Amino acid sequence: MTLRVGVIGGGQLARMMIPAAVNLGIELSVFAETAGESASLAVTTLGDFRDAAAVLPFARTVDVVTFDHEHVPQEVLAALLEAGVTVRPGPEALLYAQDKLLMRGRLSALGLPVPDWARIDEEAQLAQFLSDHGGRAVVKTATGGYDGKGVRVVRTAAEASDWLALGHPLLAEELVEFRRELAQSVARRPSGEIACWPVVESIQRDGVCSEVIAPAPSSRGRLADVAEEIARSVAENLGVTGVLAVELFETTDERLLVNELAMRPHNTGHWTIDGSTTSQFEQHLRAVLDLPLGATGCRDEWSVMVNILGGPATGDLDDRYPHAFSDEPSVKVHNYGKSPRPGRKVGHVTAAGADLDEVVFQARAAAEHYQN
Amino acid sequence: MTLRVGVIGGGQLARMMIPAAVNLGIELSVFAETAGESASLAVTTLGDFRDAAAVLPFARTVDVVTFDHEHVPQEVLAALLEAGVTVRPGPEALLYAQDKLLMRGRLSALGLPVPDWARIDEEAQLAQFLSDHGGRAVVKTATGGYDGKGVRVVRTAAEASDWLALGHPLLAEELVEFRRELAQSVARRPSGEIACWPVVESIQRDGVCSEVIAPAPSSRGRLADVAEEIARSVAENLGVTGVLAVELFETTDERLLVNELAMRPHNTGHWTIDGSTTSQFEQHLRAVLDLPLGATGCRDEWSVMVNILGGPATGDLDDRYPHAFSDEPSVKVHNYGKSPRPGRKVGHVTAAGADLDEVVFQARAAAEHYQN
Repeated sequence: MTLRVGVIGGGQLARMMIPAAVNLGIELSVFAETAGESASLAVTTLGDFRDAAAVLPFARTVDVVTFDHEHVPQEVLAALLEAGVTVRPGPEALLYAQDKLLMRGRLSALGLPVPDWARIDEEAQLAQFLSDHGGRAVVKTATGGYDGKGVRVVRTAAEASDWLALGHPLLAEELVEFRRELAQSVARRPSGEIACWPVVESIQRDGVCSEVIAPAPSSRGRLADVAEEIARSVAENLGVTGVLAVELFETTDERLLVNELAMRPHNTGHWTIDGSTTSQFEQHLRAVLDLPLGATGCRDEWSVMVNILGGPATGDLDDRYPHAFSDEPSVKVHNYGKSPRPGRKVGHVTAAGADLDEVVFQARAAAEHYQN
Repeated sequence: MTLRVGVIGGGQLARMMIPAAVNLGIELSVFAETAGESASLAVTTLGDFRDAAAVLPFARTVDVVTFDHEHVPQEVLAALLEAGVTVRPGPEALLYAQDKLLMRGRLSALGLPVPDWARIDEEAQLAQFLSDHGGRAVVKTATGGYDGKGVRVVRTAAEASDWLALGHPLLAEELVEFRRELAQSVARRPSGEIACWPVVESIQRDGVCSEVIAPAPSSRGRLADVAEEIARSVAENLGVTGVLAVELFETTDERLLVNELAMRPHNTGHWTIDGSTTSQFEQHLRAVLDLPLGATGCRDEWSVMVNILGGPATGDLDDRYPHAFSDEPSVKVHNYGKSPRPGRKVGHVTAAGADLDEVVFQARAAAEHYQN
């Protein structure tokens, strides 16, 4: 019987599930907001994911519902469960990817390493937090933020007054002194099996993931073990099913702190498409279908992924293929089929090889073809 | 501007172009005969590929037309060209993949190594050929054969009388004493660039490709060079664009003879999806779009592909996933989404690694999960 997976959200994460689904003979259906989104090839339904009545008929055509993003409201998820739909990751796990305050509270309760944090309902609390943390703090909206949106570094409580005026509590965090950012992706299936990719280094530019090096340089041993242990603990304790990405700070005093969680394939795992035996997209499908997970080893000593962001001068990516392909015949290009608005992630490239400097150079050179 | 490739034929070769097209942001459209074929996700038109009037409207929606099979009649191809459609490979090349007599004649004229052969219009000619070749010959219909169909080993001319009675000339070939069968895949773009994968060994069972080992054991050096030289010569002299697979006999006296040609991705190249930097499906799309070709190196020391054939007891492949995935987490499975009729190619598996014996064992063990 054909396995049927439904994805809510039609962005590039849903799109990149298509090749994995085609390979495994899985029928992938996508619920998108508008026509022409990145995953349009697999779109079967257009509608508003905030409307349970719109989502339910779609959900009834598949064996399991999963996600391209974390924004489906808990009320909609509850309605799906009530109607007997299988939803993975489940609402009770997804909650912690939707609400950063709940996430911080839960991880703290589990004894997992996180930055100092506080819930902020009013300016006075933020002023206190600032004075306790050297006069600087990161303030985040609890919900709705992504790619640097909903995040501010503040020095005075007044700098968050507009957000507080909206009436929702904020999350304040210490400004962590970190050496670098890492990300640990794992997959967990309902029966409990967990598979971990190696921890990677993630380089951000303007709050957006720009480059990923897999595995993270000098991570073998303790660092890799601790990162994996943290991600396993999150996956198990929160009951995550599917892919979980844990973004981490490696502090200047060599601790790992959990920054963010994503319960879906994640930008820091795109390298796995070309660089791991099992891509995060195939693994996510296996996991949400409760099938045994695939091997997660690296296919090369080093894989480097560089995002392609739309810029003012960027035309369609394929206009650049003649030069880019000719200069970099070994680099794998992933074009999300999106119109290249400035700053928008429109694709990525992955290079691989045995010499890290060379691989980084190659990946950056390839990405440059698409950005200038 | 989005690149648009149209594929005539909705089988697994068209299906396996979908992941490559998704990655590169190429809009792939498929012209299939019936609904529910292997490539159905990308099917935009249903119709008869023998009917130019049915194919033309489809062809006008794409930048280039290419093929899942070689059966599109020359009259239809001529009509496409006349209407200004770009067709790759072109009819003048495709002719030699469609008609084995023309192919043998052309390769002989080019001085390429082929088995002894003759055109047979009547029994007396076959009787003569038999007496000249030790009393045995391979007889093939000039057109329409595949996977062992349209091929017979005969000892008397009478054994081909039913085929001769159909009024079409036959091809008689010496029964080559071969050590093994090899296959050399290359890709050529209209501007002339050619890229070659390593020569592979192909193991047939009942006239159907069963297993492929890449690269062919003990092929480095002269054997690889000669195989590549033959395939390059065929591609250049016949003006092939897209992927060309040349099936070869390695004779007991260490010559290479051309057996068959296929001008499209070929079963002996399926290992490239997981085993080469550029898969034959991506390369075919690049080549027919006249884009620079991708690197064709091996990602592993050895890759072994084993076909999954439907058998009397075979249910849907995905029924076997729980056991198969659990036993072989590193093996890549490709499910063509076809109902498993006996003998029908319904999928393949690819294993890879540094120890050939182990890789062969692993690939066969994985395929066994789906066949018993």
